[in-house]
Amino acid sequence: MTTRRDFLQKLSIGIGAVTLLPTSSKASIFSIPSGNEKKLRVALMGLGGYANIVAKAMKTCKRAVLTGIVTGTPSKIPVWKSNYGIADKNIYSYETLHTIADNSDIDVVYITTPNSLHYKHVLQVAATGKHIICEKPLADNAQQAGEMIAACKKAGVKFFVGYRLHFQPHTREIIRMREAGEFGKIMHVNNYMGFKIGDPSQWRLKKGLAGGGAMMDVGIYALNGARYATGEEPLWVTAQETKTDPVKFAEVDETITFQLGFPSGAIASCGTTYNFNNYERFYLIGDKGFAELSPAFGYGPIKGRTHLGKMPQQDVIHQAAQMDGLADCILKDTPDPNMTGEEGLKDMIVIDAVYESIRRGSEKIYLPAQTTL
Amino acid sequence: MTTRRDFLQKLSIGIGAVTLLPTSSKASIFSIPSGNEKKLRVALMGLGGYANIVAKAMKTCKRAVLTGIVTGTPSKIPVWKSNYGIADKNIYSYETLHTIADNSDIDVVYITTPNSLHYKHVLQVAATGKHIICEKPLADNAQQAGEMIAACKKAGVKFFVGYRLHFQPHTREIIRMREAGEFGKIMHVNNYMGFKIGDPSQWRLKKGLAGGGAMMDVGIYALNGARYATGEEPLWVTAQETKTDPVKFAEVDETITFQLGFPSGAIASCGTTYNFNNYERFYLIGDKGFAELSPAFGYGPIKGRTHLGKMPQQDVIHQAAQMDGLADCILKDTPDPNMTGEEGLKDMIVIDAVYESIRRGSEKIYLPAQTTL
Repeated sequence: MTTRRDFLQKLSIGIGAVTLLPTSSKASIFSIPSGNEKKLRVALMGLGGYANIVAKAMKTCKRAVLTGIVTGTPSKIPVWKSNYGIADKNIYSYETLHTIADNSDIDVVYITTPNSLHYKHVLQVAATGKHIICEKPLADNAQQAGEMIAACKKAGVKFFVGYRLHFQPHTREIIRMREAGEFGKIMHVNNYMGFKIGDPSQWRLKKGLAGGGAMMDVGIYALNGARYATGEEPLWVTAQETKTDPVKFAEVDETITFQLGFPSGAIASCGTTYNFNNYERFYLIGDKGFAELSPAFGYGPIKGRTHLGKMPQQDVIHQAAQMDGLADCILKDTPDPNMTGEEGLKDMIVIDAVYESIRRGSEKIYLPAQTTL
Repeated sequence: MTTRRDFLQKLSIGIGAVTLLPTSSKASIFSIPSGNEKKLRVALMGLGGYANIVAKAMKTCKRAVLTGIVTGTPSKIPVWKSNYGIADKNIYSYETLHTIADNSDIDVVYITTPNSLHYKHVLQVAATGKHIICEKPLADNAQQAGEMIAACKKAGVKFFVGYRLHFQPHTREIIRMREAGEFGKIMHVNNYMGFKIGDPSQWRLKKGLAGGGAMMDVGIYALNGARYATGEEPLWVTAQETKTDPVKFAEVDETITFQLGFPSGAIASCGTTYNFNNYERFYLIGDKGFAELSPAFGYGPIKGRTHLGKMPQQDVIHQAAQMDGLADCILKDTPDPNMTGEEGLKDMIVIDAVYESIRRGSEKIYLPAQTTL
């Protein structure tokens, strides 16, 4: 069993001298581009269900355009060509991926392969010199995430994580209000995200592809939400697991509750599941007000209220807003601080601690102060 | 420091062969009494804020009537006489309490003194042969609660805990629905109850009178709610504490999150505080539906919704409904299974474990199977 010292040492080895930026709403996303502004040209890598959602959403993008695909399944190519007008010269297999370096039609590769392939794929794409967006969770663990960041830095490519909610208006407004002090001192957070997963044969239930279960896939929303609710990094993590269907969830976690203790004294009480519905909510309590999003983390519409009343309904297509927003980050060199690879790493550090707590029978895991990482 | 074995041994010594009944909604409470039905005659013991609420509520009771008081503060007597028509012969001090045995105007003593006095006062009243209602929390710990139950049994007096919500229509309806299987298998519970406490000099912030802080006073609602949400007793408890105001909360707990693991596999993720508002909710998720009460645990109006829609608004004065309900329990010998001293003990067992977990740095505490206690 890994001792606490081992755990902390592993982290510091893996992460090295990475600079971790604070969670912030400062980047602007809804500026209108001029007519002949250059668009971000995107290749999607891994044409599963989520890639389809992104591709469809991108048809509405103003500043980003889908120009390429990378797939290991040739049978998918015709329908992608026909649906999205992908040119033959912009279609890659994993074997030909290294030649994407020379393709001037592609600025960035958006990796939407299964979680456990992110690490390998980020290293491969970084070697081509293309910028990278990687879907969450960034990797199987913080060690890998740290190496991915280092590889991108070494290759001189920009590296982002697909945290679409940071381009979602309710979420951005709550972060803005928190930064403006409108909630006062943050006293407590109660976030959870889960659903009853269907098809028992899907990759999300296979540890070798998914890295973990509900915690990796959707628990990360509750966790990321706790970080943007507080604007802080947790000092400690405790976690509890239950498994009511040990057959379906033989390889990955089914239901986990976890708690994060922040430097200010606030606790975030969180949870995640793959085995029941009606479990999606963001709730922040400050000493001057509160904010609730419910639903909070799905593809929308997000609904919210604060101590001031119902939040205005501002529906966007999350994936389109994300890709337009990242177009600015990449083309104008104004990185959104909430979308960096370092943000993805911060969540992986906490996810590692959640699993470590569970391995140790729900023991409290103390995290290194993240600003010194 | 107490070891786990010590903790379990203490419990089994204290509780002995007490029979613990299941949480149930089976007792009927809203039957209409005939005109000349005997009323339950009640003496209130400890004339603090809550006694005033009970006394005022009892003016609307159909089957219970306030006939006596026990107080250590003679200056309070005139206003109680004038407000509630208490006869001189039914007014007791703590010194004269033992003579209540001979008073045929009083069937039951309702103890609303500070928490840490409940133990002593229950033993004193039991010795008089009067039946007892004791406000929650029953005692400082499970050891005391077990001794109180044993003393009442030995004295042949009935012993109830003041769990007013078990006579509250939304709460009863949810328990009924759960027992009828309308939520299916219970998968998860998310309950919390707290508020920002005022006057820093009040007895609730003094360990010697309150026994503990938010957990004892209002966390018990989240905990009791988790037990009636599941109809089960927890197998394990984990807990985390934070104290952001160590001056005001020098003696008692300020904010605690705690989790209960049930035999069915459901986890209840709960919390309590004395240091912020907007923190009151009952939320049950089953595989066929859900129920939310918000507000859930205060004096009302309680508001609720389930997967079937908004729950009908049925406002009652909680304390009046409780006293009318207990009139049946006592006079007709049909004890409500949710109001027994044993129910109060079950919560104290879990509260002991919450504090024990915190003392041990949030360690997981396994509880003895409660049916064998």
